[in-house]
Amino acid sequence: MKTRDDALARDAADPLRGLKAQFDLPPGMIYLDGNSLGVLPKTTAARVQEVITQEWGRDLIKAWNTADWMHLPERVGDKIARLVGAAPGELVVADSTSLNLYKVLAAALEIVKTDAPQRRLIVSERSNFPTDLYIAESLCRQHGFTLKLVDGVDEIPAALNAELAVLMLTEVNYRSGYKHDMKALTAAAHAAGALTVWDLAHSAGAVPVDLKGANADFAIGCGYKYLNGGPGAPAFVWVHPRHADRFWQPLSGWMGHAAPFQFTPDYRPAPGVRRYVCGTPSVIATSALECGVDTVLAAEPLGGMVALREKSLALTEAFAALAEARCAELGIYVVSPREPAQRGSQVCLALKAPLQEAGYAVVQALIARGVIGDYRAGDPARLDAMPHILRFGFTPLYIGFTEVWDAVEHLHQVLASGEWREARFNQKAAVT
Amino acid sequence: MKTRDDALARDAADPLRGLKAQFDLPPGMIYLDGNSLGVLPKTTAARVQEVITQEWGRDLIKAWNTADWMHLPERVGDKIARLVGAAPGELVVADSTSLNLYKVLAAALEIVKTDAPQRRLIVSERSNFPTDLYIAESLCRQHGFTLKLVDGVDEIPAALNAELAVLMLTEVNYRSGYKHDMKALTAAAHAAGALTVWDLAHSAGAVPVDLKGANADFAIGCGYKYLNGGPGAPAFVWVHPRHADRFWQPLSGWMGHAAPFQFTPDYRPAPGVRRYVCGTPSVIATSALECGVDTVLAAEPLGGMVALREKSLALTEAFAALAEARCAELGIYVVSPREPAQRGSQVCLALKAPLQEAGYAVVQALIARGVIGDYRAGDPARLDAMPHILRFGFTPLYIGFTEVWDAVEHLHQVLASGEWREARFNQKAAVT
Repeated sequence: MKTRDDALARDAADPLRGLKAQFDLPPGMIYLDGNSLGVLPKTTAARVQEVITQEWGRDLIKAWNTADWMHLPERVGDKIARLVGAAPGELVVADSTSLNLYKVLAAALEIVKTDAPQRRLIVSERSNFPTDLYIAESLCRQHGFTLKLVDGVDEIPAALNAELAVLMLTEVNYRSGYKHDMKALTAAAHAAGALTVWDLAHSAGAVPVDLKGANADFAIGCGYKYLNGGPGAPAFVWVHPRHADRFWQPLSGWMGHAAPFQFTPDYRPAPGVRRYVCGTPSVIATSALECGVDTVLAAEPLGGMVALREKSLALTEAFAALAEARCAELGIYVVSPREPAQRGSQVCLALKAPLQEAGYAVVQALIARGVIGDYRAGDPARLDAMPHILRFGFTPLYIGFTEVWDAVEHLHQVLASGEWREARFNQKAAVT
Repeated sequence: MKTRDDALARDAADPLRGLKAQFDLPPGMIYLDGNSLGVLPKTTAARVQEVITQEWGRDLIKAWNTADWMHLPERVGDKIARLVGAAPGELVVADSTSLNLYKVLAAALEIVKTDAPQRRLIVSERSNFPTDLYIAESLCRQHGFTLKLVDGVDEIPAALNAELAVLMLTEVNYRSGYKHDMKALTAAAHAAGALTVWDLAHSAGAVPVDLKGANADFAIGCGYKYLNGGPGAPAFVWVHPRHADRFWQPLSGWMGHAAPFQFTPDYRPAPGVRRYVCGTPSVIATSALECGVDTVLAAEPLGGMVALREKSLALTEAFAALAEARCAELGIYVVSPREPAQRGSQVCLALKAPLQEAGYAVVQALIARGVIGDYRAGDPARLDAMPHILRFGFTPLYIGFTEVWDAVEHLHQVLASGEWREARFNQKAAVT
């Protein structure tokens, strides 16, 4: 893309361009933060109204049957399953990503304790999203395991050894946008005798995922990023059928019981992944999530996740190339991998010395212009390895090449004019 | 009440009668199931629309600041605190009742393991709501404790001994409506050297609760019953300040971290009860819950929970007395305690031999007439101790004496006419 007209032409030729009409986007905003919070589908408000005023308001308690609230976790779960290479009945919507990680990691540790009790290590990345590390830390304390953190993908092979119990990774790193090779790492972990837990928070709806094809063991994911489920939307959990019936997961609530309405005092887990549902799910929030998932499924007749991925890679490559071409001399460099197979649906930039501390102000100046990205602080002790990051997500459902062009134009102007030096600092950070 | 006119007169004289106008009640329905799912407040639909279309739709990620989504758990928590005798900052909204029980019971066991490691028993009631027992069962398996179930309140004193770690009770029993004496039992448990965990699912918004006055240790409760938060609404959790900072709770998600936006790899719990928040909360569901809580707080200028309790006791006594007076000869008897101090906001009826198995059909016949109660199966092996139950909840915010009169009239007609023998059996049960 050499000119804005090139960008307009690419958008006009984009076979997925019609999908954007599914969303209510704020006018004048270039929203490059769908990897933090997806935008509002046009159907959500009306569907939630229907759930509130008709299902709840009119039918009240009877709606558990008339609207089949009982099977919402499976109904929406089966839709998400289509996006991540899982079969119907293998995936449910429930609780939050953190809670689902607790369930599957605890189940994985149970399996290890039974099958390979000498294995006591959980391996993850230091730059994994913190909640994953916090949950692993808690389970390690409880069960006598150790959480070992590696500082980069290069250190993973050495960690796949006879001590490894579980390799726990987020497929696409929330900071850098680095995308792991799920299939190869799962095979390597299995060859080493370990299990895998995959966090798909930045994958589901963003990149094609093939859980069964990769032979993964457990996976969880987020409903409010690329699935457009709304702020704090319920999350999802998948368990390979070979593990699903083996153990209790510890959050053994009544909605995961084999017969919840028998009200028996003893827990008997439901068959399969249903036991990963705990308490009563929020019907309103799960219904909103369903609308978001439907916006991704709407791409199926146009090539589905493969077509979305092709567009996503084109968008991120165009943004990285343009940012470099136009802003390198102003201090910008690209942190995300340029190799397509290693990149999720986001691009991270950073600033060279002497501007290495300017990232926060630059993001604020962009937000003031209506270009929404976010900032993630680096490690002050080693900024070259872990720089402060300007993070931009490109959701191919509603972002086009013209937004890419315009965003880089704004970035160029913010840096060239020095207006970032005036940017009002908002000390509160946004949510990943 | 001897006549329907008496009932009309009592409603006309009820100082709380205006509170009913806060709700959208289905026309022609007598809804006596607010102890299972509260009704829809008139404000909820519009508030949820605002959250969806404005906060989420327009502000997107910025709404974490502009709408202060970050502090929703505390903001709604502080409102619920006013209903249960807790101070601001001591109670948060989070996750489900089951999950909150897991957090507080795990924290209680940590305290016991440190302070009194010889104590290994958790005591609860066999007739406690099953999810509480399932969660306790899970924690017992993990931590080497034993769950001991008593069959009635009379057996509790003997269980308060040197082996007791935690007394875990639901203040108002979901089946029988029996209300424990929280203050006396907490004092007795403390005198025995144990901790208390109280489930307020059938208390919050139904009976006055004074957690601090009772010197309780931990409490949890439900958002979708008497708090009218909507199906599967988020739940709440309270921890006495003397315990709040002592231990991690095990569901250590990033939203309970002391500094979530520093994205550090090590978990450091937030001070106080905020550490009981785990993953990202559903903003939509929590906002709906706030509307429900507000309907209860609207009673504050009229005497608050004390006034609501007075009306609730009058309603339940009127229903029990009328059901007995008009339906005893048709086989009905009252299971719930007649002693006001021992009764929650519900009345349970049962049927004598030879009709002891007719309860389910009678409830179905009532539902067909628009009188919504629910049925809870008893223990077939000992029906006199634990009969099949016809359960009727009386939410004083929106139920009046005329509904009490009409409901008993319908019950009388269903039994006298024998129409229950024709009632279509709906094999699916409703949710407690």
